[in-house]
Amino acid sequence: MMVRNRKSSILRDALKSKGLVKVAGAHDGLSAKLAEKNGFNAIWASGLGISAVQTVPDASILTMTEFLEAAVIMNESCNLPVIADCDSGYGNIHNVTRMIKKYEVSGIAGVCIEDKVYPKLNSFDDRQQLLVSTEEFCEKIRAAKMAQQNDDFVLIARVEALIAKLGQQEAYTRAKAYVQAGADAILIHSKERSPDEIVEFVNNWDVDAPLVVVPTKYPTLSMEQLEELGVKVSIYANQALRASVKAINDTFESIINNKSSLQIEKEIVSVKEIFDIQEVPEMKQLERLVHKQPAT
Amino acid sequence: MMVRNRKSSILRDALKSKGLVKVAGAHDGLSAKLAEKNGFNAIWASGLGISAVQTVPDASILTMTEFLEAAVIMNESCNLPVIADCDSGYGNIHNVTRMIKKYEVSGIAGVCIEDKVYPKLNSFDDRQQLLVSTEEFCEKIRAAKMAQQNDDFVLIARVEALIAKLGQQEAYTRAKAYVQAGADAILIHSKERSPDEIVEFVNNWDVDAPLVVVPTKYPTLSMEQLEELGVKVSIYANQALRASVKAINDTFESIINNKSSLQIEKEIVSVKEIFDIQEVPEMKQLERLVHKQPAT
Amino acid sequence: MMVRNRKSSILRDALKSKGLVKVAGAHDGLSAKLAEKNGFNAIWASGLGISAVQTVPDASILTMTEFLEAAVIMNESCNLPVIADCDSGYGNIHNVTRMIKKYEVSGIAGVCIEDKVYPKLNSFDDRQQLLVSTEEFCEKIRAAKMAQQNDDFVLIARVEALIAKLGQQEAYTRAKAYVQAGADAILIHSKERSPDEIVEFVNNWDVDAPLVVVPTKYPTLSMEQLEELGVKVSIYANQALRASVKAINDTFESIINNKSSLQIEKEIVSVKEIFDIQEVPEMKQLERLVHKQPAT
Amino acid sequence: MMVRNRKSSILRDALKSKGLVKVAGAHDGLSAKLAEKNGFNAIWASGLGISAVQTVPDASILTMTEFLEAAVIMNESCNLPVIADCDSGYGNIHNVTRMIKKYEVSGIAGVCIEDKVYPKLNSFDDRQQLLVSTEEFCEKIRAAKMAQQNDDFVLIARVEALIAKLGQQEAYTRAKAYVQAGADAILIHSKERSPDEIVEFVNNWDVDAPLVVVPTKYPTLSMEQLEELGVKVSIYANQALRASVKAINDTFESIINNKSSLQIEKEIVSVKEIFDIQEVPEMKQLERLVHKQPAT
Repeated sequence: MMVRNRKSSILRDALKSKGLVKVAGAHDGLSAKLAEKNGFNAIWASGLGISAVQTVPDASILTMTEFLEAAVIMNESCNLPVIADCDSGYGNIHNVTRMIKKYEVSGIAGVCIEDKVYPKLNSFDDRQQLLVSTEEFCEKIRAAKMAQQNDDFVLIARVEALIAKLGQQEAYTRAKAYVQAGADAILIHSKERSPDEIVEFVNNWDVDAPLVVVPTKYPTLSMEQLEELGVKVSIYANQALRASVKAINDTFESIINNKSSLQIEKEIVSVKEIFDIQEVPEMKQLERLVHKQPAT
Repeated sequence: MMVRNRKSSILRDALKSKGLVKVAGAHDGLSAKLAEKNGFNAIWASGLGISAVQTVPDASILTMTEFLEAAVIMNESCNLPVIADCDSGYGNIHNVTRMIKKYEVSGIAGVCIEDKVYPKLNSFDDRQQLLVSTEEFCEKIRAAKMAQQNDDFVLIARVEALIAKLGQQEAYTRAKAYVQAGADAILIHSKERSPDEIVEFVNNWDVDAPLVVVPTKYPTLSMEQLEELGVKVSIYANQALRASVKAINDTFESIINNKSSLQIEKEIVSVKEIFDIQEVPEMKQLERLVHKQPAT
Repeated sequence: MMVRNRKSSILRDALKSKGLVKVAGAHDGLSAKLAEKNGFNAIWASGLGISAVQTVPDASILTMTEFLEAAVIMNESCNLPVIADCDSGYGNIHNVTRMIKKYEVSGIAGVCIEDKVYPKLNSFDDRQQLLVSTEEFCEKIRAAKMAQQNDDFVLIARVEALIAKLGQQEAYTRAKAYVQAGADAILIHSKERSPDEIVEFVNNWDVDAPLVVVPTKYPTLSMEQLEELGVKVSIYANQALRASVKAINDTFESIINNKSSLQIEKEIVSVKEIFDIQEVPEMKQLERLVHKQPAT
Repeated sequence: MMVRNRKSSILRDALKSKGLVKVAGAHDGLSAKLAEKNGFNAIWASGLGISAVQTVPDASILTMTEFLEAAVIMNESCNLPVIADCDSGYGNIHNVTRMIKKYEVSGIAGVCIEDKVYPKLNSFDDRQQLLVSTEEFCEKIRAAKMAQQNDDFVLIARVEALIAKLGQQEAYTRAKAYVQAGADAILIHSKERSPDEIVEFVNNWDVDAPLVVVPTKYPTLSMEQLEELGVKVSIYANQALRASVKAINDTFESIINNKSSLQIEKEIVSVKEIFDIQEVPEMKQLERLVHKQPAT
């Protein structure tokens, strides 16, 4: 039973291509579409972002259904492949199995699961970060790979050992085991302000599987440097969200203070630009096509 | 059978209070919460905004289910009452009946329906705007009022006669009929750059029902002026959305151009600020409370 | 851009094969799975059935989102292709376009749209049945065919002219126009107790497109007779639903009357049989596989 | 902040009334409505049933979103209060908190959570049943009671100690602790074919909180006997579902074997009866009312 998914193939090709794959974290369809327009190669359906636009903590509060729905909207809003941030897989191997089936059939190109317990905490949360055992997570990876229906669907295993302060050795051992269990790539996460921790991991990496990083806390490491180090994918996970908060706050403040939207008008895009993002011109074009088209 | 809804009561009280009710258009939970923080009195669950974050036209493309889901997220994200923009009511009197039941039971404070045909076009769209007859719309209003279960739930009838270039007389006649059919307030819409059209309508209004306006195209009319004219509610419907587009675009452009998020970091809010919006501090507080609390 | 959908191909092959295609109307995943077990060839995601299990009229009350969700559950519950009953297409050409995209990407094999106005009435409803013009419906068909992404996705056009008492000539003219506009098959519906009306239509049909019937009201016409007439597909649309109502009613009555479920126990399936339908054995099997499987 | 929920009040009154409260397990809106028609007092939105109509195991495979959606449909389909089977609460105290908020605002009268780990297994499953510690479950109960907004909302704590073969003492100790933590009632579950286990527990129960049972496996214990023992609520959890499976199977088999639906017609309800369940007569009535009604 072979179901092809065009976007999985695009993502897999990107992982095999030369050069850094630039991924933008999105929190809705709009941000996904703007990422495409600005030249990113793929979308990160961010668990933090999807939670934030619903104002709930990034702590497995939203359900798989809600996260999937948000990822599907992103997927339909642009032509880029979407990598869905699937936290710790929403439970055990059976939850992972259903998750893979649902995400794959919905056209998502790949998913990322992390080796934290369910319910999880955001990696930047200062409370204690709990990981499942290496073997338990390998079982999830095996279940995931058995559940997928097309070969191109991508499973990224996210190693939280550095986040949990367990050291380089533990991080390496886990990452290697995850690849052996079937993971297609490893996301190695760090929240150090210095890039040293990530650089050390990347330099020690001798397994044949691409590495993914999320340089939110260490933005001094540029795309060129990441590429030179041998990192394959860099995710800019939450900057769009954080920019949105600032802009919306400023806008509301301006309207209240100026008792009118007149002042803010010149600093925001026009309604016409919104219409373009909504593909109103394409809608008008369709009306013409359907009218004119002779019966076939 | 009486179901009380706290937020409907707040909204109704606001409509009876002195002074202009300031309403912010939101497109997700985050923007709703920021509206509350900045001092708005209510949320407009904007059809344009909800469509735009899914990158589809504001033309009855999303279903009632999808619009409701978005409105519910806004409602849960803040303490303000939410007025849901329900387009032309999603069909006929039976669709309106189900709509009212679903929105009311979900805790939405009120809805607004407009006298356009289904499927509708955004009022700022330059294609021809088609209205249903006055009587057909009055039937929808009657059905809506019969469907609601608590007296406080608010129904706003939106008159599109000025948008459809049908003149002041038609706008007045329709508005009056809608109030007689049971509407709790009238939203009179205009897309003229000059406020004259709205000012004339408001000045001629001699029916005992509050007026609502959306001064997107005529922002020169300030809150003070609106209040002086006797307008009760002013909706700033899409500025937050338009600010978001600008900010996200700039952010993605900066990351691509600078090959890093380093430059944009200082212009966007911190991850900690996102955590606050997500109520992570309240989450930690709950953990302490539940642990400490003695058995009751 | 080619997205293959295995089930669309199966359905298309069935339409080209010899012999009658037997389709079972389902109202949930369970009934879809039991249809498969009993030898049907495809599932009809019945609008009547999906509405009935939510106890709302079959009159465009549920939204496309709700109908799609139900069809997806059926699709995931069995290996048969699902034909979704999509009423009049949920609005205009733009609603049809989105509908096709959503259903196709969700793995549904094909859809059926009918030439009634939106909102529609069930064909067996005794109120007046209103049709859109032939040209308006042809535009929907053209829009649908332009929206689909893989060639195998099936669009069935349902002719309601006999239901609306417009006569054989109108039914033929519409059916032919729909095929010329791109429909892959014609569903010709009748609510006469005598099969004469359907037999006449089928005998007059000289267009190269398969015919689909729903013999709810004329069950005297057997599968053999339908096949001999040249009908390609027969849908048994609502018998499972109607059997369910009878059985549930009897069961509840028995429990209340006997003050215990003891009497009814011997007339209903065991909990174990429910577990089998839920694939609990497969779940246990997966647990063994994932444990045993050596790292790959 | 007080939100009244009429159905919670009805359920709470029932718990205080004399006589056994008879609860029917439902798996969709239709079965809920038929339960009402047959004289049951409340609906059990069964986790097994909701899972079964989607053909997935009753093992926390569906998400809270999906279970809630099914419970809401039941709630809207009848006038009875709905008690939602919420498994182990979908995670930790934070998931329970969100769960309570969502279920309560949606009009559900009460929920039941059980002291199993997440993901759970159905109690009749023969694999090992794992419980969380008494203290961990008490924290969930405290969190739940802190989250509810109206006093009448009902929380039932389900004790799985007998299911897990931990003995009467453990069952009693847990049940008492759960009441002290705030539970409004205790569901004590057993899968013994003999009623002895349940009878012993009920006879030993000396805490001031109503008891709930589910006599699926011991139907010899009648409603009169349960009432005499002092049990307050008896849930007939899955008989309607099991009757449905039998009836649908027989129907499909008949159609295939007889090559027609003619034979089965006389054993199933009419389409008209389906229309009545869908409230088509009420729909026609509304059309008349809305037309005739003078402007108010």
